[in-house]
Amino acid sequence: MRYAHTDLISYARALLTTAGLERAKAEAVAAILVEADLMGHNTHGLALLPGYLGELESGSMEKLGTPTVLADHPAAVTWDGRRLPGPWLVLEAMALATERAAIQGTCTVVIRRSHHIACLAAYLKRATDQGLMMLLTCSDPNTASVAPFGGLDAVFTPNPVSAGIPTGGVPVLMDVSTSATTNGLTNRLHKEGKRLPAAWVMDGYGVASDNPAVLFDEPKGTILPLGGMDSGHKGYGLTLLVEALTGGLAGHGRADPKEGWGATVFLQVLDPGAFAGLDAFTRQTGHVADACRTSRPAHEGSAVRTPGEKGIALAARQMESGVELYPSILPSLSSWAIKLGITEPVAAH
Amino acid sequence: MRYAHTDLISYARALLTTAGLERAKAEAVAAILVEADLMGHNTHGLALLPGYLGELESGSMEKLGTPTVLADHPAAVTWDGRRLPGPWLVLEAMALATERAAIQGTCTVVIRRSHHIACLAAYLKRATDQGLMMLLTCSDPNTASVAPFGGLDAVFTPNPVSAGIPTGGVPVLMDVSTSATTNGLTNRLHKEGKRLPAAWVMDGYGVASDNPAVLFDEPKGTILPLGGMDSGHKGYGLTLLVEALTGGLAGHGRADPKEGWGATVFLQVLDPGAFAGLDAFTRQTGHVADACRTSRPAHEGSAVRTPGEKGIALAARQMESGVELYPSILPSLSSWAIKLGITEPVAAH
Repeated sequence: MRYAHTDLISYARALLTTAGLERAKAEAVAAILVEADLMGHNTHGLALLPGYLGELESGSMEKLGTPTVLADHPAAVTWDGRRLPGPWLVLEAMALATERAAIQGTCTVVIRRSHHIACLAAYLKRATDQGLMMLLTCSDPNTASVAPFGGLDAVFTPNPVSAGIPTGGVPVLMDVSTSATTNGLTNRLHKEGKRLPAAWVMDGYGVASDNPAVLFDEPKGTILPLGGMDSGHKGYGLTLLVEALTGGLAGHGRADPKEGWGATVFLQVLDPGAFAGLDAFTRQTGHVADACRTSRPAHEGSAVRTPGEKGIALAARQMESGVELYPSILPSLSSWAIKLGITEPVAAH
Repeated sequence: MRYAHTDLISYARALLTTAGLERAKAEAVAAILVEADLMGHNTHGLALLPGYLGELESGSMEKLGTPTVLADHPAAVTWDGRRLPGPWLVLEAMALATERAAIQGTCTVVIRRSHHIACLAAYLKRATDQGLMMLLTCSDPNTASVAPFGGLDAVFTPNPVSAGIPTGGVPVLMDVSTSATTNGLTNRLHKEGKRLPAAWVMDGYGVASDNPAVLFDEPKGTILPLGGMDSGHKGYGLTLLVEALTGGLAGHGRADPKEGWGATVFLQVLDPGAFAGLDAFTRQTGHVADACRTSRPAHEGSAVRTPGEKGIALAARQMESGVELYPSILPSLSSWAIKLGITEPVAAH
C-alpha cells in the first residue's frame, strides 16, 4: 500500500487545521512529518501525528501566534517557543538564521519551550539545497531515559545531533542520537517483544542488555550513552554538550518544572560563502564523501554509504512511486479522521 | 619524580625559543603542553615537544609572523595559519572570538594550515573561567587512520570534539575523539605490546580487534569510528561533521597535497550572556552536572564524574605538589636539551 506524498501532506494538514492549528503552522508540521516518512524515518514521521493531535486537543500544543524574542544579538537569537508546534518553529528559525548568516557568517537560534520537533534529518536538505551548512540539536527536559556514564539514574533524553553538509553532489545529512539507541526504537521493539541489535541498554542493576524490556522493569533500566559500556564516556560528553547548547543557552530545561512533551532547540546556520567559499567547501567535503563511498567494503556486497544517502534516494523513489507507510501509522490516525471528519487518503499504487 | 609546573614551562619555553620560536609563541606552546600534563593527558603534553622541536628544526613549523586573514565577517573569521605553532594560533583565535562574541553573541574562527594543536582540553578552562562556552574541534588532513563505517580504507583522523561548559561550579571540559580510540593510545600500547580495553580497531580483513598491532600489519587495519561494529554509523556521522567544520569551512584539507603534521581547526565561542544570560545558563548546566554526580553508581564505589572533573582536580593537586610526568617524557627531551644547551629541570619533590 503506497500513498502519494502530496495526499499524505494534505491529509495531515487537514487533520491539523481542523484540530485548530493555523494554516501555515499545519502546512509546516505536515510537510516535515511526511518528509521523514519519505526518507524512511518511520518512527518520526506521521507516526507522531496522533500524539500531536492529542496535544492540540489538550491545549498542550499552542495553536496561535509567534515565539517571544528573549534576546537578539546579530548572530545569536533566543526565543520562547510558547509550546508552538516544533516543525513550524524550526522552519521559522531556519529562515531567520539563513538571512542573518549571509551577513554575520553564522547565526544561531535557540528555542526554549518548543513543542516536539519530529525528525531532525527532515530539515537539513532545505539548508544544503541553498549551499548552507546547518547544525540542529535538541533535548526534551520533560523526560529522561539515558543515564550518565557509570550511573544508574536516567538524566538525559537521547539528545540527537544532526548536521546538513553540502558536498556538491548528494549532501551529507547526519542525524545521530548521542545515546546508544532511542526511545522510539526501544518502545517499538518492546511492544513487539523483540531484542535490540546489541547491548544498548542497561538494567536497573548496572548490567548491559539487548532487551528493551529492562526500561520498563523495576528497578528501571536506562539507555546507555553512545559508546556503551566501554566507550560511553564519549557519548556522555556529547550528551552534556547537547544539554549546554539547548537547555543551557536557552536558559530553560531540567532545572524547571516539567511542562509536558516538548523540546529545547539549538539551530545554527553556517554559510560556507562567508568562510573560504562554497566551492572551496564542497571541494573538501565532496572529496571526503567520495573517499568514503569508494572505500573497499568491510563486508562484501555492502558498499560504504554517506549519512543520508539512503534516505535521499528513498525519498526520490517514494516521491515517484508513493510512500510505503509503516503498517501501524494510518490505523493509528483513523479515530482522529472520524472525529475530525477528514477523509482518509486512498492508496495510490 | 615530580616537577614544579613552572619549571616545566620554563624548560619547554627555553627549548622552543632557543630552537628559534618567537618568545610569545614559545610561551603559548609551553603553557598549553604543560597544562595537558597537569590534567593527566600525558600523550598530548610535553610528550609532543620532541616532535615540535624536530618540526622547528626542519622548518615544517613556522617560527615567525601572524596568520593570514582569508575572510572576515562579524561572527566568522577564516585564517591561513601558515604552519605556525597550533597552541599559539588557538589562543590568538580564542582572544578574537571572545571579543567578537561579546557583540555578535557567538564568533567562529577556522584555521587552515595550523601546525598541531596538542590537547584540546587544555584550552577550555580559559573560556569557562570567563563564563563562556567554547567548542573546539580539529582534523589533520596529513594523515588518516580511521575508516568510514563499513569500510576498510582509512579516510579520517580521530577528529576530536571538545567543549568547555560553565556550570557555576566545576566546569564540564569534554574532549572526545569521534573514533573508537586515538593514534596516541594505539601507538603507545603497540610499542608496549599491550591490548586495547575493547575491540576499538579492525584488521585489514574487516574483523574487529583489541590488538593495536593490526594498525601496523599488512593488509593494514584501521581505527573504528566511535560506536564500533554495532553503532559506528554514529561516530562516522560525527567524524564527517568535524571534517565539514574544519576542512570544509577552512577550504583546505584532504583534497590538497599533504604538507606534513598539522591541523585544520574550528573554534567557536558562545557567550551565554548574549542568549538567556549566564545565570540562566549555569542554573541548567549546574543542575544537570549535579544530577550526574549524584546518580547512583552502576558499579559500587565508582561515583559518576563529569567530564574534566578528574583532570581539573589532578591539575590543582599537581600545581601544589608537582607534576608526575609519564616516565618516557624527560628522557625523550634529553638530546634536545644537550643540543640546545638548556639545563634539564630538577625534580622538586
